[in-house]
Amino acid sequence: MSLIEALNWRYATKKMNGQAVPQEKVDLILEAARLAPTSSGLQPFKVIVVTNPAVKEALLPHAYSQSQIVDCSHLLIFAAWENYTEANIDEVFNRTNTERGLPSEATADYVARLKSMYLTRPAEENFQHAARQAYIGFGMAIAEAALLHVDTTPMEGFNGEKVDEILGLKEKGLRSVTLLPLGYRDDSNDWLVNLKKIRQAKSDFIIEY
Amino acid sequence: MSLIEALNWRYATKKMNGQAVPQEKVDLILEAARLAPTSSGLQPFKVIVVTNPAVKEALLPHAYSQSQIVDCSHLLIFAAWENYTEANIDEVFNRTNTERGLPSEATADYVARLKSMYLTRPAEENFQHAARQAYIGFGMAIAEAALLHVDTTPMEGFNGEKVDEILGLKEKGLRSVTLLPLGYRDDSNDWLVNLKKIRQAKSDFIIEY
Repeated sequence: MSLIEALNWRYATKKMNGQAVPQEKVDLILEAARLAPTSSGLQPFKVIVVTNPAVKEALLPHAYSQSQIVDCSHLLIFAAWENYTEANIDEVFNRTNTERGLPSEATADYVARLKSMYLTRPAEENFQHAARQAYIGFGMAIAEAALLHVDTTPMEGFNGEKVDEILGLKEKGLRSVTLLPLGYRDDSNDWLVNLKKIRQAKSDFIIEY
Repeated sequence: MSLIEALNWRYATKKMNGQAVPQEKVDLILEAARLAPTSSGLQPFKVIVVTNPAVKEALLPHAYSQSQIVDCSHLLIFAAWENYTEANIDEVFNRTNTERGLPSEATADYVARLKSMYLTRPAEENFQHAARQAYIGFGMAIAEAALLHVDTTPMEGFNGEKVDEILGLKEKGLRSVTLLPLGYRDDSNDWLVNLKKIRQAKSDFIIEY
């Protein structure tokens, strides 16, 4: 199946049936997120994978009690760095140079420029930037899931502070930005499953110069 | 090729060779962006496609003179709504109901809730939200390009105000958020092409509960 076919097949699943997604498919979905490009390769986000029913139940009221939170197989939470820090930036480039067999001087000028930009900006601006990078990974995970015929429900409607508290994200320097339940559609109880997918016409979506 | 293989194949191409990407591939890349999921299905962004050499040249100095701007085949600019407006929200749901053969009452409560949220927030907060949606489409375009073995350079480093001015985006209620040159790598002149792709280890990227 092509990506275009997969994107036409997928929809924001409103009712899941509780069936488990095989671990090898979950691994591929996470791998797509891990391979997603990010600004300067910093990957300023992580993915939290919740399978523990008690944790899902604890999260449920903070996501408008949307049933997919508990009816999904795996609940992914995309969480971005709450700020860019010297330590985080150094970790990325030390690892990069080590894995490439290059001396630290190879990226010294570039890293200095990044630090002069990120470390002088307000934390909120940096978080917003990190969150955008997480959305690229979020998209890649949705794409890979669709290619594997795994349903997803991209969600922004939740109380981030409560989710962060339950998952202990603040202590890790992270803030939740999106939720992505993985599972399988419950065809007979999902009001959206048979409705036509609506998008802007190509002629409206694209502007040519 | 699987999406995982495609994501491993791709990299942020630093030097392109000027070869043209066939229109049918460009169309598929744009289609992936058009099919991307967005919050409430609002699709608060458009894609500008630049092929005119004079327009590329005009944009070049405002994107740190990165050569891919002019050496690419097609330059995509992802541009998000500068704000959510009553007219924009109504257009989406009028179209949705018309295409689904439903009366406007079908979405009246939902639309009222969306308006009470979006139309009372600062424009900048709404723009930031719209920009995040554009990043999902940006990711889908990068994914589809990689699957088609078309190279891309995801870019955030440019002067948005200047780009918006050259493309007349403000008059359309849009603000540029990312650039995506499409083309083909110039293997012998690209310093990045043979360097190992670096990512966080799975054990660092994933947190399980």
